[in-house]
Amino acid sequence: MNYQQILETAAQEASLLAGSGTVASYIPELAKVPPERFGMALIALDGQVYATGDAGERFSIQSISKVFLLALAIRLVGEDLFERVGKEPSGNPFNSLVQLEYEHGIPRNPFINAGALVLTDVLLEHLPDAKSAVLDFARRLSGSPDLEYDAAVAASERATGFTNIALANFLKAHGNLRHPVEQVVDAYFHHCSLQMSCLELARAFLFLTNHGVLPNTGERLLSVSQTKRLSAILLTCGFYDEAGEFAFRVGLPGKSGVGGGIAAIMPGRWATAVWSPEINHYGNSVRGMKALELLTTWTGESIF
Amino acid sequence: MNYQQILETAAQEASLLAGSGTVASYIPELAKVPPERFGMALIALDGQVYATGDAGERFSIQSISKVFLLALAIRLVGEDLFERVGKEPSGNPFNSLVQLEYEHGIPRNPFINAGALVLTDVLLEHLPDAKSAVLDFARRLSGSPDLEYDAAVAASERATGFTNIALANFLKAHGNLRHPVEQVVDAYFHHCSLQMSCLELARAFLFLTNHGVLPNTGERLLSVSQTKRLSAILLTCGFYDEAGEFAFRVGLPGKSGVGGGIAAIMPGRWATAVWSPEINHYGNSVRGMKALELLTTWTGESIF
Amino acid sequence: MNYQQILETAAQEASLLAGSGTVASYIPELAKVPPERFGMALIALDGQVYATGDAGERFSIQSISKVFLLALAIRLVGEDLFERVGKEPSGNPFNSLVQLEYEHGIPRNPFINAGALVLTDVLLEHLPDAKSAVLDFARRLSGSPDLEYDAAVAASERATGFTNIALANFLKAHGNLRHPVEQVVDAYFHHCSLQMSCLELARAFLFLTNHGVLPNTGERLLSVSQTKRLSAILLTCGFYDEAGEFAFRVGLPGKSGVGGGIAAIMPGRWATAVWSPEINHYGNSVRGMKALELLTTWTGESIF
Amino acid sequence: MNYQQILETAAQEASLLAGSGTVASYIPELAKVPPERFGMALIALDGQVYATGDAGERFSIQSISKVFLLALAIRLVGEDLFERVGKEPSGNPFNSLVQLEYEHGIPRNPFINAGALVLTDVLLEHLPDAKSAVLDFARRLSGSPDLEYDAAVAASERATGFTNIALANFLKAHGNLRHPVEQVVDAYFHHCSLQMSCLELARAFLFLTNHGVLPNTGERLLSVSQTKRLSAILLTCGFYDEAGEFAFRVGLPGKSGVGGGIAAIMPGRWATAVWSPEINHYGNSVRGMKALELLTTWTGESIF
Repeated sequence: MNYQQILETAAQEASLLAGSGTVASYIPELAKVPPERFGMALIALDGQVYATGDAGERFSIQSISKVFLLALAIRLVGEDLFERVGKEPSGNPFNSLVQLEYEHGIPRNPFINAGALVLTDVLLEHLPDAKSAVLDFARRLSGSPDLEYDAAVAASERATGFTNIALANFLKAHGNLRHPVEQVVDAYFHHCSLQMSCLELARAFLFLTNHGVLPNTGERLLSVSQTKRLSAILLTCGFYDEAGEFAFRVGLPGKSGVGGGIAAIMPGRWATAVWSPEINHYGNSVRGMKALELLTTWTGESIF
Repeated sequence: MNYQQILETAAQEASLLAGSGTVASYIPELAKVPPERFGMALIALDGQVYATGDAGERFSIQSISKVFLLALAIRLVGEDLFERVGKEPSGNPFNSLVQLEYEHGIPRNPFINAGALVLTDVLLEHLPDAKSAVLDFARRLSGSPDLEYDAAVAASERATGFTNIALANFLKAHGNLRHPVEQVVDAYFHHCSLQMSCLELARAFLFLTNHGVLPNTGERLLSVSQTKRLSAILLTCGFYDEAGEFAFRVGLPGKSGVGGGIAAIMPGRWATAVWSPEINHYGNSVRGMKALELLTTWTGESIF
Repeated sequence: MNYQQILETAAQEASLLAGSGTVASYIPELAKVPPERFGMALIALDGQVYATGDAGERFSIQSISKVFLLALAIRLVGEDLFERVGKEPSGNPFNSLVQLEYEHGIPRNPFINAGALVLTDVLLEHLPDAKSAVLDFARRLSGSPDLEYDAAVAASERATGFTNIALANFLKAHGNLRHPVEQVVDAYFHHCSLQMSCLELARAFLFLTNHGVLPNTGERLLSVSQTKRLSAILLTCGFYDEAGEFAFRVGLPGKSGVGGGIAAIMPGRWATAVWSPEINHYGNSVRGMKALELLTTWTGESIF
Repeated sequence: MNYQQILETAAQEASLLAGSGTVASYIPELAKVPPERFGMALIALDGQVYATGDAGERFSIQSISKVFLLALAIRLVGEDLFERVGKEPSGNPFNSLVQLEYEHGIPRNPFINAGALVLTDVLLEHLPDAKSAVLDFARRLSGSPDLEYDAAVAASERATGFTNIALANFLKAHGNLRHPVEQVVDAYFHHCSLQMSCLELARAFLFLTNHGVLPNTGERLLSVSQTKRLSAILLTCGFYDEAGEFAFRVGLPGKSGVGGGIAAIMPGRWATAVWSPEINHYGNSVRGMKALELLTTWTGESIF
């Protein structure tokens, strides 16, 4: 399969959609990213690397970090995790409080914000330093020891992220946060501020492609079954209330972030990541989704 | 892979869950099915057939019929279909009116009851006789020319299915039914009453396994892309508000019915169907889900 | 108090709001009423009658008929009625199915459509002919033996009232309708089609002003306590999700209909009715509410 | 009218309900109040005072303080207030976030917690010291210069009131709080901790009975129209999602608090307050509501 050519052509076609989304503006650090940026990378399990555009440039991965939180939390507490967070699609926006109220403080799934706050609380319980642990995990997965949180982004979210602070207090009111709200949201906002490139993200997702084993070292991070389950949650819940649309058009387990990044896997074959800052009103990258749709259509590779 | 042995062992293990669900009782015809019944079949693309228990006995497939409606509707109107019905998981029970009201009469997806009522309306628009067309399609897919609707089941649902009639009237109020309510619900209740065995269901789903082509004749029923999309909707929406759980535990596109049947596919390899009448409170077969979880765990075969 | 002058001046001021609402158009019979019509009547307990404009012209009272249903149902079954229908404001539009689903088929109050369908079912249970009984009751209250249902309006609603038919089926599904859906909605649509003038409506509400006793005959229809309770429901639930606004601006127990009528009472003193067909998006007459606000402001008479 | 005897007999009958509610336990200070306490006071506009039981004992008035906030806010900003807070019954529990989300941060009415947080924010904007101003206002209305906040109650709520803090952050996220969350919730929790007796509460509500004028000094605090409007909001929204029930059974504008207090007015005649710590699951005093129902039934005095 000529992935390199497919990536380049997909990038070109996707560029026709320039202007049909908007750069996330709720914090200044995200708003100042040039909208025309586009990068895409695909790394095969055999080690081949394909890339185009700004694939080497780091951006704010935002909610994609939730995949790292979930993998770590599953490693730490296994299936018990799902007593505190569900695994069903929410049918609601990512920051909705409605379902949380009806369902008494148990977030629908780990990828809505409330769910990731609970994951963060779990990490705080089992790790001496959750912020460092998540950073170390991302460095190890991506093979990039110099990954960093963006302190300005984290501080900006801390100062303006009232909905997330509301969610954390609401979880606390329902007894589903064990640590102080301040501590949980501080860690959470740092996790979201992680900076990675498409190449780093694609590499970091390869262990999911490889059924739980880090390809370069052979180390098993998750069991086959755990990997299947994490991937299932990606497919049903990875794109807020556009999960069905992504499964329908792209047909891969993946996760998006409001920074315009998307990472996805084709189990047993490759991992990919794409970045384009213009997002639609569901919070998903417009050109990113298009490029991935073209990738799976042209290669005929999807999980279905 | 020794599928025959796996099916038999899965059947045995699943039988330990006897009594942990209840047989659907809302119509007498369903209530009188013996709860201990269990059948399972798997048919590989190479033509091999594996079966255990009551795999040859017909039962009321109920909502599994929605897959046939969707395949037919996609063939008739293509992507335009999705102007009248969504493709997102609902996060609500299968017969909920709530989301329908908030979303102005556009059902969340084709597999909630409201969605299938819209599919039925679409079929009525493009086919001289929708009831016969669905029956013929199921006969052709399964290779069983003697499939029939169960008139008693259809009549019973017609007499007591007030929630579905409410849904149809509500869709009509929102302009999303073009035919008289009576006509739509009559066809809908007939579709649900279709009687098939696990062997017939597994065979009927093989064209989805085969990316849209009927294996025995080579005839293409759906394009590769249409098949991918239909399978994606199965995965995200096929199990009411337990879709996440099924993806998590089983990891296959599939569809359940309150008669206790489940049909599922492993793309490129096989289709399977299981039947056990005891259902959980989401409406999905308890032993059926367990047997499929064991199947994908032991074979290591899932889409993830 | 110079009520006559107040009515005339209120009519003039309210006329300035012409064009700020729209005539109900969901059935042709309502849509063809000239929007500029305005009538208002006030009848004091001492027998004095004040009227202005089209106060003698009959119009479709629509939901105001629910007050007659409620009074009859309270007479027939007393407080037991409130096991099948609540008495809390709904916080939702008059024809919403949402709350009904969350609350398992018990309508929030008697004045949302679902509640009035239950009232109708209660009347059908205790009266040989509910349609005639309601008509007779209205004739007796108003002293107008020639009141009639408008058959064209009733037929038109029957042909297009899919939301109400959906509500009735949903109530039936929850076991909160004991008669066939057809029979209930037929009676319900007839009740709504009752034609009355402002003068007739004001007179018909006088027994509520008079704490349950018909002024002209001295006959007690409701106990003091029953009258208080019915009036309380009028105040908290009589204006769909604008009940708070009406209480705030006008400060009287009252009931509106989409035909543009409003009837209201000042306990111990008078009853009033106003009619102006232009309604706001909550379904309440724009000029009617204004005229009543002026009436209570200028007279200083309200229940608060 | 022999109010003294009525109060005493109502107290006796209400005492039969002992044990049918529970003392609010979410903060220790409230939980330690003896459940058998009962006090009731009625003060007529002519100055007559009637009292029974623990009418002179102070308790935590909690949400009854919202009436003082609303009166002050109306004095400060008039009808503009209602651009930031609605005046419709909510149909939801007092601390629900659901409606707030659907309605974009505009609380349904001033008496749900979110609404009172907005009132507090308004006071902070127009008063140098909102905490002192509310305390001074309550002292002035009640004629008790030694009223105080209970610092222990305020501190306890501050430490555990995560739902209220969630609400405040959510309001802030929607731009409907202008001051820091910390400052608003600190003032809010203090207002709730005000300690008053039934006698003091009844006296404090007399200006509402008197159409806005303080009876002892003749000073006008609210216009007749403002008083009518505030009373209307009391009637439709004063008892959380039991407002309809209170209007139905009691028929007076009133306000309850989870400390077990209720204050209510009979316009033009008297104000009353009752206290009994056992509350029902809506948060309203069981014996308090009963005693008030008996009062209005036996006197025949209600607004309807």
